[in-house]
Amino acid sequence: MPAPIDFYFDFASPYGYIAAQTIDALAERHGRTVNWHAIVLDANFQSLERIRIPTSVMRSDYIRRDVERLAAFMGVPFKTPSSLGLHTEMAARLFHWFNDRDPAQGRAFAQCVYRAYFLEDRNIAQLEVLQDLCSTQQMPPAELQSLVNDSAARARLKAEIDLAEARGVFGSPFFIVEGERFWGNDRLPQLERWLERGPY
Amino acid sequence: MPAPIDFYFDFASPYGYIAAQTIDALAERHGRTVNWHAIVLDANFQSLERIRIPTSVMRSDYIRRDVERLAAFMGVPFKTPSSLGLHTEMAARLFHWFNDRDPAQGRAFAQCVYRAYFLEDRNIAQLEVLQDLCSTQQMPPAELQSLVNDSAARARLKAEIDLAEARGVFGSPFFIVEGERFWGNDRLPQLERWLERGPY
Repeated sequence: MPAPIDFYFDFASPYGYIAAQTIDALAERHGRTVNWHAIVLDANFQSLERIRIPTSVMRSDYIRRDVERLAAFMGVPFKTPSSLGLHTEMAARLFHWFNDRDPAQGRAFAQCVYRAYFLEDRNIAQLEVLQDLCSTQQMPPAELQSLVNDSAARARLKAEIDLAEARGVFGSPFFIVEGERFWGNDRLPQLERWLERGPY
Repeated sequence: MPAPIDFYFDFASPYGYIAAQTIDALAERHGRTVNWHAIVLDANFQSLERIRIPTSVMRSDYIRRDVERLAAFMGVPFKTPSSLGLHTEMAARLFHWFNDRDPAQGRAFAQCVYRAYFLEDRNIAQLEVLQDLCSTQQMPPAELQSLVNDSAARARLKAEIDLAEARGVFGSPFFIVEGERFWGNDRLPQLERWLERGPY
């Protein structure tokens, strides 16, 4: 069985949303599976100056347009949300709760959160919104409470982010296969060539 | 005559080097011409926090590998130079001296500088190296001296950078066609679609 592709994403990242619509099909074409990893980019990384690209009106304007154009180019439905850069810790903790029990459920939840944010313009930083989403109904209220308040779920997410950092992840979407790192949707053709023909 | 493509690049940018190998052919396929613009990214922009992406060992390692892989992927010969991030003001001033007289000569000089840096590992921050390069022989010694010491050539480059900034340029390579901005080699397929089918 060939190595899976590790797919890192932040729920705040529209580029991550676009990648989420394509990565599984790409992997399947090459007989690979995908491990999904929700991370929060500014949790650990910000202080290390490793992630946040300086933003300015100019650059934000560019990114806003770029995302819309990329979605159109890739044929992915997309609606720019009224608020970009929402906090995604809670959504990420929920993701891991589902994903640790069943990766298929984790993935379904992730797709659901992404759709809510980048198609339906819902505020995924709010617990009520997350609670309302998709399969969260299947989550016991006690678990949901612990996700809000605390420790095990926080530690779970922190470990994921620490691991991502140790592996050299610094953006969303980010892919690792056989130790090779690929950052951004635009590196997917290079990732595909890697899968087809091996290292280059 | 359809609008030309404006191509902005910094001689320190390996991605700009890669773009320089492909942009003219791309434009020609669509009956367009290209205006080449040498800029210096950290001259004006740094203070505005508009350009420089925070670097770290992690990220630099990534970029170093990414450039090599991209060059291999695109079939562009490339050799990582021993020193990245050289100062490129002088090379850019020389470029404009040539380009203002004859765009074909400007382009030839630009290709020459890029090859010297990213194939031959020469230090293009040094005047002697630039002086030695290609068509610089055709430059009168008095002009060359004025490029080192000053004002008209400096003002010429500064105006170019100010204009680039006003147009929303913040990286290398950067392309503008009909007011639409495209940042990076990876956006060239989107630029091509724009040329083929118009705005989207």
